[in-house]
Amino acid sequence: MSRLVMKFGGTSVADLERIRRVARLVSAEVQAGRHVAVVVSAMAGKTNELVAWTDGAGASAQGIAPSDDEYDTVVASGEQVTAGLLAMTLRNMGVRARSWMGWQIPIIADDSHGRARIEEIQAEKLGAAIDSGEVAVVAGFQGVTRDGRLATLGRGGSDTSAVAVAAALEAERCDIYTDVDGVYTTDPRIESKARKLAKISYEEMLEMASLGAKVLQTRSVELAMAYNLPVRVLSSFVEPGEAPGPDGELQGTIVCDEEEIVEKRIVSGVAYSRDEAKISLFGLPDHPGVSSEIFGALADANVNVDMIVQSHARSADTANMEFTVGKRDAGRAMEIVRAVQSRIGFEDATVDEEVAKVSVIGVGMRSHTGVAKTMFGALAEKGVNIQVISTSEIKISVLIDAAYTELAVRALHAAYGLDKL
Amino acid sequence: MSRLVMKFGGTSVADLERIRRVARLVSAEVQAGRHVAVVVSAMAGKTNELVAWTDGAGASAQGIAPSDDEYDTVVASGEQVTAGLLAMTLRNMGVRARSWMGWQIPIIADDSHGRARIEEIQAEKLGAAIDSGEVAVVAGFQGVTRDGRLATLGRGGSDTSAVAVAAALEAERCDIYTDVDGVYTTDPRIESKARKLAKISYEEMLEMASLGAKVLQTRSVELAMAYNLPVRVLSSFVEPGEAPGPDGELQGTIVCDEEEIVEKRIVSGVAYSRDEAKISLFGLPDHPGVSSEIFGALADANVNVDMIVQSHARSADTANMEFTVGKRDAGRAMEIVRAVQSRIGFEDATVDEEVAKVSVIGVGMRSHTGVAKTMFGALAEKGVNIQVISTSEIKISVLIDAAYTELAVRALHAAYGLDKL
Repeated sequence: MSRLVMKFGGTSVADLERIRRVARLVSAEVQAGRHVAVVVSAMAGKTNELVAWTDGAGASAQGIAPSDDEYDTVVASGEQVTAGLLAMTLRNMGVRARSWMGWQIPIIADDSHGRARIEEIQAEKLGAAIDSGEVAVVAGFQGVTRDGRLATLGRGGSDTSAVAVAAALEAERCDIYTDVDGVYTTDPRIESKARKLAKISYEEMLEMASLGAKVLQTRSVELAMAYNLPVRVLSSFVEPGEAPGPDGELQGTIVCDEEEIVEKRIVSGVAYSRDEAKISLFGLPDHPGVSSEIFGALADANVNVDMIVQSHARSADTANMEFTVGKRDAGRAMEIVRAVQSRIGFEDATVDEEVAKVSVIGVGMRSHTGVAKTMFGALAEKGVNIQVISTSEIKISVLIDAAYTELAVRALHAAYGLDKL
Repeated sequence: MSRLVMKFGGTSVADLERIRRVARLVSAEVQAGRHVAVVVSAMAGKTNELVAWTDGAGASAQGIAPSDDEYDTVVASGEQVTAGLLAMTLRNMGVRARSWMGWQIPIIADDSHGRARIEEIQAEKLGAAIDSGEVAVVAGFQGVTRDGRLATLGRGGSDTSAVAVAAALEAERCDIYTDVDGVYTTDPRIESKARKLAKISYEEMLEMASLGAKVLQTRSVELAMAYNLPVRVLSSFVEPGEAPGPDGELQGTIVCDEEEIVEKRIVSGVAYSRDEAKISLFGLPDHPGVSSEIFGALADANVNVDMIVQSHARSADTANMEFTVGKRDAGRAMEIVRAVQSRIGFEDATVDEEVAKVSVIGVGMRSHTGVAKTMFGALAEKGVNIQVISTSEIKISVLIDAAYTELAVRALHAAYGLDKL
């Protein structure tokens, strides 16, 4: 008998009516003979309520650091509630079920409270329970440290819980039910011709996720890739009759190994992000050690730098440099840059938050040339100016004026024929 | 250094403002050099919200029994939230603190989910923590079964948690902070001359609690008596400056061993309850076995019978009988009585819900006579008719027409001089 993990996010369990819908989807898989573990998030809005309370309780006149272990104790309660309610609902539908908290399994996490990483899942009891035909309803987002404190995995952590539980159970697949019905070639809110992908590789999904297509938490995709575990993204808002049967066609998008994707595309999708800011440094002294001085100081302050480009100024002795950081870090990054300025003596630094990063992603780029040429040509044709370029093996990103975001996304989507099957 | 347990109910921790007030009260005890464990309930209203969800999830078309273990999983989350928030608040006031869930201590409970009893508290870790100067904030109302499931103790269970934790820690006292400032000679809403008692014995408190003075959960008083642990009842709505200091006079009411009460009163209080219904059976055959037939059937159905009186009817061969049951059980009790009627053949049965039980309580009754005489005299003087009488070593209860409740309470309060110091 095959083991299956199903995961439902906050909007899918937002109230008792939706929890009943989830229970029907779970029941259909049980009827189809699968051994099922279900991972659930807190009911939509509950985590925010709990976090607001911790903000109120932690607000400190003395500026004492937040009590992250107690934050976790409070916030982990949301998933506990959903797990209990879903187990009750399943039983009332005649499906054997019980809830499992992180500490009951246990899911061992490190003690980086609020953003803990799963270290180990001891899944023997859990596996035996589901093999006996009892649905295991697992509270997502939470684990327990080796000294017995509750730890949470950070926002979106239930995806990671689900993939980690699936890996520990050696499940055939992890189904992530969410409020979208799969992974699209681009954001359908920008391009109505966006198509749902039947399959996408782990690496493409990772680039999508890190570039702002917020379907799956990045860490969960990394984990799935490490264990070569197929992950399916699909909507929890299907009607029970449409739930996939044992032999029915799979819905949603399967995230899997590249080798399992028969119909390979050169470009799979166009992603965009407005979460970055561009910092420009002018008149840098052109000698070794300048870059390491700047980026060393930023790294020491935990500021993540994404794209970097350096160019020589007209004056032969100086260079200009542009790089991007997360918008949240922009202010701090500028402070660090100003501090370095006095030591290395460049002329000026500016920050621009009105930028967007647009990327084309596809494993086919490895073996095909001309992807960049198509990209730059399509953008030039629409009059979109490229400020910074960065590339990896399977993606090309450009930084542009944020006002051109939608125009650029649509132009690229058409240029690679993503609107056609 | 002395160990102290402080307990705060739902209204005392209803919001962040009140949690800060609680933290100030805790901090004052720490400043006074005590080693403190705090037991907290869920924020007022939260348990009701959680219970309503379980009702919704458990509502079953097939009439399947409720999933009490999952009910406990859901409902226990309320105390978890409060414990984390109070620990954070204390830390932000510069007081070392951490939260403890029932399963972290552990508080071992039996598996009568929803009304579990504490079997054992392994308090070594907890005791070491508070002796190190760290406040332990314990989630009340919850324990963990021997097979690792969450269990709750039933409504008001946090009082029991607090007393059990205090007993396990061998604390000098357990302070129960609530929304009243102590135990009164009677209900101040009925008799404005009611006085707060400085001390009351465990046995008197037990009679008070079981008779409807809902200050402390009965089980918690039994436990305190078993361990001879002093319990103080006091208001959490005192101003921080009024918090009891190390040498300050104690506020509230101390529930303790009779031996420690110097100024002994014959009668300590007047209690009343409108929660009972009277069932009258007429024309019972007057032969052995009739009573055991009736009360055996009621006991088999778990219907608790309180007062019983039997009298001979004018016709020599038959008797009449009156007894009281909880109002909630009245309908079921009548069904059982009707079923027995066909077998033993009495004439008629009636039920009267318009009754009240009024009781005078005092350990002094053991050594003083005349208490009953004073009671009956005072009631007769006001024209209050007594329907049923029952007595124990330290209390006399009478059943009267509910319309006379307040009149009777005030008359008895005055008759025993309880309005005078």
